[in-house]
Amino acid sequence: MEKLTLVKIGGAILDDEVRLGSFLKLFAQLEGKKILVHGGGKTATKLSEKIGLNPEMVKGRRITDAEMLKVVTMVYAGLTNKTVIARLQGFKVNALGLTGADGNVLIAEKRPVTDIDFGYVGDITEANVNTDFLKGLLDQEITPVFSAITHDGSGQLFNTNADTIAATLAVAMTRYFEAELVYCFEMKGVLKDVKDQNSVISVLNEANFNSFVAQKLIAEGMIPKITNALEAVKKGVSRVIIKSAEDLPDDSAGTIIIK
Amino acid sequence: MEKLTLVKIGGAILDDEVRLGSFLKLFAQLEGKKILVHGGGKTATKLSEKIGLNPEMVKGRRITDAEMLKVVTMVYAGLTNKTVIARLQGFKVNALGLTGADGNVLIAEKRPVTDIDFGYVGDITEANVNTDFLKGLLDQEITPVFSAITHDGSGQLFNTNADTIAATLAVAMTRYFEAELVYCFEMKGVLKDVKDQNSVISVLNEANFNSFVAQKLIAEGMIPKITNALEAVKKGVSRVIIKSAEDLPDDSAGTIIIK
Repeated sequence: MEKLTLVKIGGAILDDEVRLGSFLKLFAQLEGKKILVHGGGKTATKLSEKIGLNPEMVKGRRITDAEMLKVVTMVYAGLTNKTVIARLQGFKVNALGLTGADGNVLIAEKRPVTDIDFGYVGDITEANVNTDFLKGLLDQEITPVFSAITHDGSGQLFNTNADTIAATLAVAMTRYFEAELVYCFEMKGVLKDVKDQNSVISVLNEANFNSFVAQKLIAEGMIPKITNALEAVKKGVSRVIIKSAEDLPDDSAGTIIIK
Repeated sequence: MEKLTLVKIGGAILDDEVRLGSFLKLFAQLEGKKILVHGGGKTATKLSEKIGLNPEMVKGRRITDAEMLKVVTMVYAGLTNKTVIARLQGFKVNALGLTGADGNVLIAEKRPVTDIDFGYVGDITEANVNTDFLKGLLDQEITPVFSAITHDGSGQLFNTNADTIAATLAVAMTRYFEAELVYCFEMKGVLKDVKDQNSVISVLNEANFNSFVAQKLIAEGMIPKITNALEAVKKGVSRVIIKSAEDLPDDSAGTIIIK
């Protein structure tokens, strides 16, 4: 099967024009078919504060009320996505921006209310990815660029975690491709000691991950990302790599997550 | 040739969720292949005021500086476009949002600086429309929805007049389709007396338009729209109709502009 690389970019890089440019240049040079997924950085939080909203956080996750949904839709699907698209076109990558609503490519369900109501947050599964549409774009040498916005198919937009979108797309696209998923961020990989960039764990699988977690050697913020990654390799993604955006072309860099 | 209907929606309807919903429902019911182009309404101006920008206007046109470009990209390509896309999906129209940068579908040139520098404003011609890409989408039963943002192909986004985008796309698509262009707004059509909705001019061509203008019977704000329309029919668009958004399905409503 042909290879497809899915890259997720997030964090502070999205807020820094120069670093974003360097990353996009590296992404443009990646060979073969590829898909980019981006989060929103801190711009959405800053904008919401500027216009007087108070983004409510529960357990490190933002509650998306109607006003916050408007802000994330503006920032993620508008400013960030279109800035990325224009810059990739400048690097001769024929990029096309997508939310889940565009081409009905990714349908979500509102996260069920338990003790917390996350608001307009959508959960997704690989069964709800329009893989044929994506394959059609890739076959035309178009590079889809997803922002972290989805919809329910009935008119409602949702905020959806970008890591989850990347993993879900990767799993769904194993139908047509040998899919590899790369999470890019500011760190050199998954670190045993967050203060030491040389403490990268080179290989993670379910067994050693559980042991690292038990020893509290993995930062709490990394756990959902790695859980997503382990789930993805279990479902057929060939490998997941967590690495620094600067190391995108370096095949030996970062943490490799395998089955 | 197969028929293609290009509809431009603008003005106050975009700022009114209920009226926008009614319009999109009518648009969804339009038969055959179609493209929607939207402006941004007043949301961009309101947001720019909220965050402390002072949108500078020269001759009724907004000067687009770097900060204002961010705002219009957020509002037009983000909030407005994705709201429209999600709602059309709810009406079972497989809509796909586009700026000129997406799929490199519409390349613009920065408006030359004369006595005025309009800032990040892009001018377009029908030669710079990726008609094959659009035809490919339409052949897949996808309905492209354009926001009024373009790019220069080298990484720079631009603000571009939505009426001009609609007319330029219509002309370019005459290569493959019998293209009809419909400008929808709040009025019943081009009025001889802006206070009288019953004073609709039913047919305009170059000769009677010039005479109406000489008699100052056409509101100044309408003149660029009609000039765009006359240019479009001269270049092969079958007809242009200027009408109320509420009258979208009524073939006899509004002002018809012919060669």
